Amino acid sequence: MSGVAGTVLTAKGRATRARIVEGAAEVLRETGVDLATLDDVMARTHTSKSQLFHYFPAGKDELLLAVAGYEADRVMEHQEPYLGCLDTWEAWERWRDATVQRYEEQGDRCPLGTLSLYLGRSTPGARAVVVTLLRQWQAALAVGVRALQEAGRLPASVDADERAAALLAAIQGGVGILLATGDAYHLRVALFQGVADLRRLATD
Amino acid sequence: MSGVAGTVLTAKGRATRARIVEGAAEVLRETGVDLATLDDVMARTHTSKSQLFHYFPAGKDELLLAVAGYEADRVMEHQEPYLGCLDTWEAWERWRDATVQRYEEQGDRCPLGTLSLYLGRSTPGARAVVVTLLRQWQAALAVGVRALQEAGRLPASVDADERAAALLAAIQGGVGILLATGDAYHLRVALFQGVADLRRLATD
Repeated sequence: MSGVAGTVLTAKGRATRARIVEGAAEVLRETGVDLATLDDVMARTHTSKSQLFHYFPAGKDELLLAVAGYEADRVMEHQEPYLGCLDTWEAWERWRDATVQRYEEQGDRCPLGTLSLYLGRSTPGARAVVVTLLRQWQAALAVGVRALQEAGRLPASVDADERAAALLAAIQGGVGILLATGDAYHLRVALFQGVADLRRLATD
Repeated sequence: MSGVAGTVLTAKGRATRARIVEGAAEVLRETGVDLATLDDVMARTHTSKSQLFHYFPAGKDELLLAVAGYEADRVMEHQEPYLGCLDTWEAWERWRDATVQRYEEQGDRCPLGTLSLYLGRSTPGARAVVVTLLRQWQAALAVGVRALQEAGRLPASVDADERAAALLAAIQGGVGILLATGDAYHLRVALFQGVADLRRLATD
């Protein structure tokens, strides 16, 4: 991890940078990306302007991109410990319920979505954060489908990557509709049906 | 349909208004909502400023909202004649293929998505256009599932509304990922799998 391009941070520097990103994420969740200022972040994180620009030389956009990466990590973390161990149907159901519940609680706010829109789809950095998250998420789901296969709960003929891709699309679509309508109905139905359809392929 | 609030337009007035909306949609697709100006729309549609403000008294945002409604109608139209007659598995496959193909051709541009973002999720009018489109789309898919049931191709126990909701989520998620990555893989996989899983429920 580097602050000024090419500068490797010390352990203490990394901790300070992480503290700024975490505080900035809190400020953005509370205030919104349009209204939050660097002064808010400095006050929240007890950081001086020179410290802030030491870690984020390009200023607000660089900090926002770091927050986007932090929020993407949270998306994955909030699915644990379920997502990391999807080798039984009970585990899949627990993951499904936890995921639906998290988005129901979050409602029509989505920190990563808001940040991506603000930074712009055309900003390569913001796009890369989203693309990386989608790839990790789908890979974790594919590992889960393969775990079912290895445990003899699904036939080997099931295409784990396609099932994972379709589940990811169901989540993204459900969350997208939640953001547009404020209602998690589609997310819930799509995810319950996705897991049920997968289970219907099971070997008895 | 009204121009100035409460003013009912004549047939000729409605035609002129529709021509302006259609021309504005062309301009927006070519130029992008950020760069397009009312002058561009006036030039394209051979309309004077006073004509434009006669039909859209509140100016650009009112015109953009009308274009959003027009683009929402296009989304539904582009799925015809397939979406309107989903009573056989062949019809479902034709609809699926046409839908995937349309979005593959469109790539990572989405006129309605761009407009919605520009007008803002918080603009009630823009949100209403999207919510209405989602409702119509889901209703059409539910009619299709019921048509299969009435033709004896699916058991009555299949929940048509939930299947339609999950298919809609699959499309929205697939298109969302397409807009983020430029790749229609998820849309294709989710829609093929959604139709295949539905067919797996079929009565022989």
